[in-house]
Amino acid sequence: MDDPFAEPADTREAILGAAFRALCEHGYADLTIKRIGEAFEKSPSLVYHHYGGKDELLVDLLEFLLDSFEAAVAGDAFDLPPRARLDAYVAAMTDPGGVDDEHAPDGRFLVAMVELRAQAATDEAYREHFDRSDRVFRRFLERSVREAAAESAASEGVASREADGDVDPAAVAETLQTLATGAMLRWATTTDRDWTGAVREEASRYLSRTLPVVDPET
Amino acid sequence: MDDPFAEPADTREAILGAAFRALCEHGYADLTIKRIGEAFEKSPSLVYHHYGGKDELLVDLLEFLLDSFEAAVAGDAFDLPPRARLDAYVAAMTDPGGVDDEHAPDGRFLVAMVELRAQAATDEAYREHFDRSDRVFRRFLERSVREAAAESAASEGVASREADGDVDPAAVAETLQTLATGAMLRWATTTDRDWTGAVREEASRYLSRTLPVVDPET
Repeated sequence: MDDPFAEPADTREAILGAAFRALCEHGYADLTIKRIGEAFEKSPSLVYHHYGGKDELLVDLLEFLLDSFEAAVAGDAFDLPPRARLDAYVAAMTDPGGVDDEHAPDGRFLVAMVELRAQAATDEAYREHFDRSDRVFRRFLERSVREAAAESAASEGVASREADGDVDPAAVAETLQTLATGAMLRWATTTDRDWTGAVREEASRYLSRTLPVVDPET
Repeated sequence: MDDPFAEPADTREAILGAAFRALCEHGYADLTIKRIGEAFEKSPSLVYHHYGGKDELLVDLLEFLLDSFEAAVAGDAFDLPPRARLDAYVAAMTDPGGVDDEHAPDGRFLVAMVELRAQAATDEAYREHFDRSDRVFRRFLERSVREAAAESAASEGVASREADGDVDPAAVAETLQTLATGAMLRWATTTDRDWTGAVREEASRYLSRTLPVVDPET
């Protein structure tokens, strides 16, 4: 991914950029406010002035990244046809950056995201964030599924759809999101990579067989 | 799930049972060897004598639970037809214990498993365990997919299979495992439960459409 903090607009963004870099470098468990301060170009004391602790800062980082994603989606920043957009989403979660290396920047970010998400198992602030995060991605996926289904209906007619009964676009979106979440967790916590190709192919086969029976108007 | 430590065979199992209870009660982050010692019926010092630290003990607990699962699978402890076995696996991961409550014993165990799995992002011993764990579950699922496909072929004939080209049972197994892993992570880290029914239904529809095109002999 591109560095979302290449040109920080204000002190908050500069601090969040430092936290992002320090998180990718050290991982969650070894991250301290001190290390974030060291990755910050200005006075480290500014970090303490803005945030009460490491988790408060990291939840704000997650919110900032999710806001950026929401803005990018709303602005049609993903310049791909809907079906290709869905395939790209699955690919990004099963093989981040297209490289099989947890030391690559995208791999390190994905590993850090899994560590932060695990905090939500017991920490309310993280949990609220990931509830919102799952809603944002669900909306993005559901819209993409509707658009891909409309595309599929336009090219194939709707006869095949009625034969199977309609499938809810939201159900397809939740399934893709759950599959991608699992791919992210497996990728970050195991060394084996043999499964990634099979999962992408099956996700693609699932979409090809399902989109024609999705009713985009549901 | 049944308490796997109801009748510990030796001191190791008694300690692991104490660790299991303490883990479900306190969660990973707040778990200490001292708290495991408190959950242990005999002298807490025995825990220190057997294990060098909390993570060494927890990895041994994970290995013990996985060994038990492997033995149960080998002994055909899952007395279900293959297709029902696959559905039950997906259901157990999307709605543990059939209750929508992270305070229920199965829910607390699932939350703890997510916390332990997240350690594998940065800890080699946990990572080796979850590599093995994914292999064990993959074998269980692949065998079940083969058996369910053979059942499906017997009831429907093989004509429909050839129309689509054969699907590898291993690819179906990896897809189910990834979906279930994602369901586990979502369940443990968010409050929303609306997605669980849709994911189970789509997994079932995926299996019903895919099993007839799986070649059990692959």
